[in-house]
Amino acid sequence: MISKRSNHKSTMSSPSDNSLKIGIIGFGPFAQFLVKTMIKQGHFIRATSRSDYTDLCNQLGISFFRDMNEFFESDNDVILMCTSILSLAQVIKSLPLNCLKQPALFVDVLSVKEYPRDLMLQVLPHDSDVLCTHPMFGPESGRDGWNDLSFMFDKVRIRNETICSRFLQIFASEGCKMMEMTCEEHDRLSSRSQFLTHTIGRVLAEMEIEPTPIDTKGFQKLIEVKESTSRDSFDLFSGLFIHNRFAKQQLRNLELAFETIKEQLIKRMNEELDPS
Amino acid sequence: MISKRSNHKSTMSSPSDNSLKIGIIGFGPFAQFLVKTMIKQGHFIRATSRSDYTDLCNQLGISFFRDMNEFFESDNDVILMCTSILSLAQVIKSLPLNCLKQPALFVDVLSVKEYPRDLMLQVLPHDSDVLCTHPMFGPESGRDGWNDLSFMFDKVRIRNETICSRFLQIFASEGCKMMEMTCEEHDRLSSRSQFLTHTIGRVLAEMEIEPTPIDTKGFQKLIEVKESTSRDSFDLFSGLFIHNRFAKQQLRNLELAFETIKEQLIKRMNEELDPS
Ligand SMILES: NC(=O)c1ccc[n+]([C@@H]2O[C@H](COP(=O)([O-])OP(=O)(O)OC[C@H]3O[C@@H](n4cnc5c(N)ncnc54)[C@H](OP(=O)(O)O)[C@@H]3O)[C@@H](O)[C@H]2O)c1
Ligand SMILES: NC(=O)c1ccc[n+]([C@@H]2O[C@H](COP(=O)([O-])OP(=O)(O)OC[C@H]3O[C@@H](n4cnc5c(N)ncnc54)[C@H](OP(=O)(O)O)[C@@H]3O)[C@@H](O)[C@H]2O)c1
Repeated sequence: MISKRSNHKSTMSSPSDNSLKIGIIGFGPFAQFLVKTMIKQGHFIRATSRSDYTDLCNQLGISFFRDMNEFFESDNDVILMCTSILSLAQVIKSLPLNCLKQPALFVDVLSVKEYPRDLMLQVLPHDSDVLCTHPMFGPESGRDGWNDLSFMFDKVRIRNETICSRFLQIFASEGCKMMEMTCEEHDRLSSRSQFLTHTIGRVLAEMEIEPTPIDTKGFQKLIEVKESTSRDSFDLFSGLFIHNRFAKQQLRNLELAFETIKEQLIKRMNEELDPS
Repeated sequence: MISKRSNHKSTMSSPSDNSLKIGIIGFGPFAQFLVKTMIKQGHFIRATSRSDYTDLCNQLGISFFRDMNEFFESDNDVILMCTSILSLAQVIKSLPLNCLKQPALFVDVLSVKEYPRDLMLQVLPHDSDVLCTHPMFGPESGRDGWNDLSFMFDKVRIRNETICSRFLQIFASEGCKMMEMTCEEHDRLSSRSQFLTHTIGRVLAEMEIEPTPIDTKGFQKLIEVKESTSRDSFDLFSGLFIHNRFAKQQLRNLELAFETIKEQLIKRMNEELDPS
């Protein structure tokens, strides 16, 4: 199977020494979003996925492999794991790793980090490098470019620094804030930020809140949070909960904080009704 | 007591036929925010409050009355109620209404609407007009002007249309979206928007959430909601709950929606752990 070149000539940089051969596993919404920039930068992309994305890949000018063995036999500098959090274990354990012709850099972009790190270290060949990353943006928040958006990474097992830094350069060159931290630190912070945001967004969606003719600016922000988080799959949201060991405590903290506020309101109401 | 003129000459329109004599009761943060624009437009402002704001009013070039009788004897086209929701009943019942020399337009800006409407209709002289309003913005969201921000109003009892429309013009001329609706409709909508926003903001403050190096855009919006709602007084927040008859149900809806989302997460987690 011969890979076609992007026909977005106008926005495509000419491939240079820094261009990478990147094989993507899992071609869902997030991978489709990421490749647009990678193609623009002149990287050479192949993809495989559970579902058939042949037509879409043809349109994008990249190769799609229905056969995982063929995908693995093709020569990739980077294997980029873009599957859902919940399917990673199954996907990674079924990879035909024996078809790999030479060591590659395995990178994941899952929204939790300790879990894919542990799985990758457990399953992948010891001579392959492992980079755990989390671009802190998606099709919505990164629609108008990636400038100033955070990109978290942890160089878990890197021997080939050249390939690793070329991969990181994809994000650095778009203006991302490159945040190097451990997977543990990521999961601790994101349980209190991203997971909390998704939970509140889903709660607001469950309440079916809608814009009103008398919205305050604060309420408009909540509507935006509701809309952007509901656009992500429920698999993504539940992955944030199930495979981040800090998330359960934060869900509990949210519930406790809600209880506290509710009690404060009821106490104040009783004082008003019976001021004696 | 002679009112001084604003010395903000550069931004002040010259007083015209449309200028009003506005007496403000309750000179807290929101009244202080409103008067800046009223002064700029050339209205003639007097204020009274529980606390002494003589120095601040001197700086603003307006009169402050420590004595409520004197305030009421001075001749006002509009009496603007800017007290907290929780103190309105006490404040309104202690007004020396007998000192009123002629009928005035009573306006309130409370963030709930059925409650002040009922109180004003019950207590104020029958020959005084009543306009219930809620500017859907505050010192934070209206910092850079009021253009495109919503202003809700209900002409509850208006005979002098001229004074009423001159008052509304204060907001219309700044570009506010003028939303005429009943007090009931306001309370129904704002229990699902503003009260919900304040509740979530307070819950996030109770959790002590803070920016992280890997914030998503959605989480940054929640931080903003937390910060702007925590800046308002707890009296304001509890007023939204105690004196809006739709708020209790929305607090319950929020709790139920949270329970639903939590159960969905736990169900999904159990399916993952025991897929049989
Ligand atoms: N969306 C974002 O904004 C964002 C941002 C940063 C990181 N991420 C991460 O990027 C990854 C992809 O996210 P996403 O938004 O595209 O949606 P997602 O629902 O998390 O994942 C969809 C992808 O997972 C694959 N998949 C799902 N179940 C599978 C199974 N049982 N077997 C094999 N493959 C399976 C899908 O394959 P098919 O399409 O072939 O069915 C698709 O490629 C996730 O790990 C997510 O945490 C997402
Ligand atoms: N802040 C906003 O963004 C906003 C927006 C729209 C509408 N509003 C409404 O505007 C009104 C004022 O809001 P605010 O932000 O200034 O804060 P607030 O805490 O709701 O009200 C403060 C005002 O209430 C007075 N007050 C409180 N307790 C009193 C008592 N026991 N007796 C007499 N006066 C008492 C204070 O008088 P002293 O200062 O003299 O102590 C001050 O003038 C509220 O009804 C609020 O719902 C506020």
